[in-house]
Amino acid sequence: MALAMNRDELSQYLNEVFPQVHQDFVVEDLTEDTITMRLVVQERHLRPGGTVSGPSMFGLADVSVYAMVLARKGRQSLVVTTNSSLDFLRKPAGGVDLIASCRLLKLGRTLAVGDVLIFSEGVDGPVARATMTYSIPPAGSAAAQFG
Amino acid sequence: MALAMNRDELSQYLNEVFPQVHQDFVVEDLTEDTITMRLVVQERHLRPGGTVSGPSMFGLADVSVYAMVLARKGRQSLVVTTNSSLDFLRKPAGGVDLIASCRLLKLGRTLAVGDVLIFSEGVDGPVARATMTYSIPPAGSAAAQFG
Amino acid sequence: MALAMNRDELSQYLNEVFPQVHQDFVVEDLTEDTITMRLVVQERHLRPGGTVSGPSMFGLADVSVYAMVLARKGRQSLVVTTNSSLDFLRKPAGGVDLIASCRLLKLGRTLAVGDVLIFSEGVDGPVARATMTYSIPPAGSAAAQFG
Amino acid sequence: MALAMNRDELSQYLNEVFPQVHQDFVVEDLTEDTITMRLVVQERHLRPGGTVSGPSMFGLADVSVYAMVLARKGRQSLVVTTNSSLDFLRKPAGGVDLIASCRLLKLGRTLAVGDVLIFSEGVDGPVARATMTYSIPPAGSAAAQFG
Repeated sequence: MALAMNRDELSQYLNEVFPQVHQDFVVEDLTEDTITMRLVVQERHLRPGGTVSGPSMFGLADVSVYAMVLARKGRQSLVVTTNSSLDFLRKPAGGVDLIASCRLLKLGRTLAVGDVLIFSEGVDGPVARATMTYSIPPAGSAAAQFG
Repeated sequence: MALAMNRDELSQYLNEVFPQVHQDFVVEDLTEDTITMRLVVQERHLRPGGTVSGPSMFGLADVSVYAMVLARKGRQSLVVTTNSSLDFLRKPAGGVDLIASCRLLKLGRTLAVGDVLIFSEGVDGPVARATMTYSIPPAGSAAAQFG
Repeated sequence: MALAMNRDELSQYLNEVFPQVHQDFVVEDLTEDTITMRLVVQERHLRPGGTVSGPSMFGLADVSVYAMVLARKGRQSLVVTTNSSLDFLRKPAGGVDLIASCRLLKLGRTLAVGDVLIFSEGVDGPVARATMTYSIPPAGSAAAQFG
Repeated sequence: MALAMNRDELSQYLNEVFPQVHQDFVVEDLTEDTITMRLVVQERHLRPGGTVSGPSMFGLADVSVYAMVLARKGRQSLVVTTNSSLDFLRKPAGGVDLIASCRLLKLGRTLAVGDVLIFSEGVDGPVARATMTYSIPPAGSAAAQFG
């Protein structure tokens, strides 16, 4: 149940494999089965009216569970999302970052499942809820698997 | 059951309300309860390896159902996504656009539901499946509602 | 944010409106935004091999969120489920009840959302995760609304 | 892409492995990637007001995708549901059966995904929509896998 990478190792690895994405995200906290991830909200994440866009919230949830799985499994960037569900609950507050609180529910042989609550920083009540399932390729597999 | 906007009116309206998004999407076809939408895949939609990113596929599904609801309801950009589910089925082909085939399943007083199959252009077998629920604010309401 | 019914009032009301269902379920605990519900597992909930069936777990999650909404909204049995997502994570243990731990994420004007973790009693690690959305009819409405 | 069992073989097999469930369901039609399944609605499927219960609709969707996977994979009852999403769209009509129209979207090495529209027999407009993911254990595996 131990972590394969600590917070610094995980941040560095995300930066290697997703340099263009990693500038948006910061790993705030990491334990054996939880991760807290920040989306540094910028102009390109917004929709008219200052709301953070749905795809940006999807991306935050997806990266959170992905990073959690990597932190446990180690440098193995081939895992792929196979399923997701999201509920949009409240309008995000303007001008603040989003904070995702992710919990690993299952880390099986071939599937990992994590759920996520997303908050506007400093505001009570989640703006969104998400669950993501990742498919884990067999050891030695040369490519990402969609199951 | 008639359309409130035809394809050209819908395209123009999307361009007005989401100019930064609209350059990515083209309304290919529109009927009373279906819409076909193209994602013009560009560098910013890709992940390492040339795969279209999850957030880009989420965005395509979301815009497709949004456009379908607007085509029926008319110029009323306040509808908001309240729920989504997505299944990622196959790796998108490299170098081709994505085509979303959307069907409106319900257009109620306060909720609309559409489902979507996403294909790599010219390739059999969907790369993703999605369902989106939109909340429709009461007539005269001044702001988007999350229900 | 106060409860409209306490645990005893809620149990009695569930028994009135769903007598055939209520014998399966026990409200174990109730706070302003959480509820714990027990499924008293019986022969009819089982599949071959002694596993609790999927529909039984769906029913437990659905009743948990329903009861949570009623506890806050009061005697208003007309709310209807509009959306659900479930992830089945582990095989339930044989011969023990299921315990659902439900949290109310949103109680809006027209929509309520709750999520649920289901455990085999006395066993670590959830057997399932669920999110349920309920549509709340306008006050004075004569019938359940699907939105 | 051929079927491993035809409609009669599939019906007989479902009856062997789920005798208590099979009396509720009838395989109406079967092709290489679609199945039509009837829920013979009875008293125990109903909620007050004559509506078919959510768990009964969940069960119909689940059995439909399960039967479709078996029809392709052959006698291999170990596949297990890992994920489901359902949208409840309209109130089912009273006194008529439910008909599920299921389409197999993916049949991979370890995961199968099918989606389902459920109708009240003889009534336009689906009452529910569902997607189910099944995990397929490796050949020779002795037990169902949750991945």
